[in-house]
Amino acid sequence: MNGEIICIGTELLLGDTLNSNSQYLSQELSALGINLFYHTVVGDNTDRLKKTISLAAKRSDIIITTGGLGPTQDDLTKETIAEFLDMPLELHKPSLKYIETFFKNTKRKMTTNNIKQAYIPTGSIVVHNDNGTAPGIIVEKNNIIFILLPGPPKEMVPMFEKSIIPYILKKEQINFHSRYYKVVGIGESSLEDKLLDIVDNQTNPTLATYAGYNEVLLRLTANSKDENIANEILQPYEDLIYNRIGENIYGGKQDTLEKVTANFLINNNITFSIAESCTGGLIASRLTSIPKISNVFHSGIVCYSNNAKENIIGVSPNTLKSKGAVSPEVAEELCRNLYDKTQTDLVMSVTGIAGPDGATDEKPIGLIYIGLLYKGDIEISKYYLTGNRVKIQERTSQLALNILRKKIISII
Amino acid sequence: MNGEIICIGTELLLGDTLNSNSQYLSQELSALGINLFYHTVVGDNTDRLKKTISLAAKRSDIIITTGGLGPTQDDLTKETIAEFLDMPLELHKPSLKYIETFFKNTKRKMTTNNIKQAYIPTGSIVVHNDNGTAPGIIVEKNNIIFILLPGPPKEMVPMFEKSIIPYILKKEQINFHSRYYKVVGIGESSLEDKLLDIVDNQTNPTLATYAGYNEVLLRLTANSKDENIANEILQPYEDLIYNRIGENIYGGKQDTLEKVTANFLINNNITFSIAESCTGGLIASRLTSIPKISNVFHSGIVCYSNNAKENIIGVSPNTLKSKGAVSPEVAEELCRNLYDKTQTDLVMSVTGIAGPDGATDEKPIGLIYIGLLYKGDIEISKYYLTGNRVKIQERTSQLALNILRKKIISII
Repeated sequence: MNGEIICIGTELLLGDTLNSNSQYLSQELSALGINLFYHTVVGDNTDRLKKTISLAAKRSDIIITTGGLGPTQDDLTKETIAEFLDMPLELHKPSLKYIETFFKNTKRKMTTNNIKQAYIPTGSIVVHNDNGTAPGIIVEKNNIIFILLPGPPKEMVPMFEKSIIPYILKKEQINFHSRYYKVVGIGESSLEDKLLDIVDNQTNPTLATYAGYNEVLLRLTANSKDENIANEILQPYEDLIYNRIGENIYGGKQDTLEKVTANFLINNNITFSIAESCTGGLIASRLTSIPKISNVFHSGIVCYSNNAKENIIGVSPNTLKSKGAVSPEVAEELCRNLYDKTQTDLVMSVTGIAGPDGATDEKPIGLIYIGLLYKGDIEISKYYLTGNRVKIQERTSQLALNILRKKIISII
Repeated sequence: MNGEIICIGTELLLGDTLNSNSQYLSQELSALGINLFYHTVVGDNTDRLKKTISLAAKRSDIIITTGGLGPTQDDLTKETIAEFLDMPLELHKPSLKYIETFFKNTKRKMTTNNIKQAYIPTGSIVVHNDNGTAPGIIVEKNNIIFILLPGPPKEMVPMFEKSIIPYILKKEQINFHSRYYKVVGIGESSLEDKLLDIVDNQTNPTLATYAGYNEVLLRLTANSKDENIANEILQPYEDLIYNRIGENIYGGKQDTLEKVTANFLINNNITFSIAESCTGGLIASRLTSIPKISNVFHSGIVCYSNNAKENIIGVSPNTLKSKGAVSPEVAEELCRNLYDKTQTDLVMSVTGIAGPDGATDEKPIGLIYIGLLYKGDIEISKYYLTGNRVKIQERTSQLALNILRKKIISII
């Protein structure tokens, strides 16, 4: 089944909005086994939109559009496709009622324009929008499927996951069942090396890797009409993957490393404090972006200067002088002294050289020490990272969160 | 002049790579006065690429492609366009020499594949790539301009700024001169209200706003062949803009609020420390992403728990009990007690309710206090912000950095 994506909106052509919808839909459609051959962006212009739709209809079996379903005069997607397919718009009363309720509930004033959003091409399938007033629309005609989705990702994504994926699976009588694994601490190419024999012989299931930011998303997909059979296909491969790289897998598709790690702390009531030098608060900031972390996060100290290391945390001036701020000794003192103040179950410290200044021959840019104190025992990890200042800070925060995550697993 | 962008690469169709090139080029081309009507993404496939190019050539005067200039068999852009335009490829010796030198300098091994990158359609203009081995190419034929750019943004963007913008300006005998202003602390619609009369009567210069993340980018553009005349057109409007919203303008196109604020601290040798509760280290993290901040950033304390506020910073338990952690009194004590420890020129504190827990009727989610201590005087700002936890944290960090920026301006 061949498909394409058409994103509609002049704001995309002006560069006002980043087109993240195309990437999301491409990943999802490819996971469903649809061959995507084109993305097109076109503005809010009837003539050009009609030409784009007409071309797409000549070459694709399934056409997904985003945008142009809003209440204004500029929003033309529905009208143009209805005209192209000769399926006139008619009022869909349940949608109108929902839109009225939506405005009532959010205490906003409904304009007459919004009624336009309840008009649907005759004979099409209406897809409920849980997060906005524009319903999605599925139109099937002449063996072509048009799926019209709202533009805002916070409306489009939930609608796609809840209604469009099941529709495509059913329609195509295909049954792609995917499991996702987020992998940290190992690069995409090393990961492929480790899983090469699975990747190479892929027929059913298939395995795909997507490089993320300091992590990799792994997708394992089975093709079977029967969900139980799909699970039987997937399970041995999942076991194989866990055997080889299990300790690097931190979660599933919707997880982030800070979310998984923070929730480990929260759910096991493990208290935590951290002294950050070169990461400057980034690790604390990532952990504290997660709700309820306040139950277990005692404090973070951004001890950026030697002055702060001495006077706020109490690192000995002798150690700082003889070993230098970036040293395993300082990493250890940071943890032990911070523990004296906070008495938390786990205490972490990070010290390193993020650059571009501060490097010496012995201590190059990218040298990082991460300390973790638990019940009096300290573990110090040492890394040589590459990249610019921000990249080194971000990679360090990723490594530190992963050390923390693994430690929690080992003690719970 | 009508234009379109074609991004070439199967990785885009699979969703492996986010298409940020389209947004960047759209903003730039629109600033140059080119009407962009389409973006297309097509994979590494000769047939579909040829169809896409052929369609573009029927409807556009200028066609910008990115990607497909690499050394592998998959890279087909040059070959396909050369064939389409009947301009056979020929070896461009200076490019070959540059590629050889590039590999020598970076101590990487040059493969025979890389020689392919030095082949150029006969009669085209070769554009030097400062950051990679694939030269850019400009082809003019039948009143259509093709501009072929490499795919990686770190190669494409510098090439566009250095060579393509001047080429287009000269070619079109247009002279769009733009000035950019980054604006913080005022939303896009309020900003448009304040500058409405300028926006409404726009002919020359024109004014455009681009909504960013908690900030707005403002572009003022004059059209004149003579740069001095352009500056004469722009200056009174710039003065007008500064008169109305000058205190909200923090920098130009390449600036970030943390960069501008950190550099104010660094360049004026103003020392700084901060106590963060609800922002959890985000402000410290943003500031410490900037090189040389270590000269002035003493320390940050993420005093997330009451325990940390008391035992690390020394806020009085009575104040915490009687006023609550989210109160102007605690914001003040955080600053004054942290000052006792750090003696920095400026001391900031942030306390608030980021949610989703912790709200009461009197203290709703989004209530934020930001304190700033300078020479014994404290200023406390109070905000009611909306959004989810992360949005509130990010907006708070933006407000706090802006308060800091303005304070530094007032004291230097």
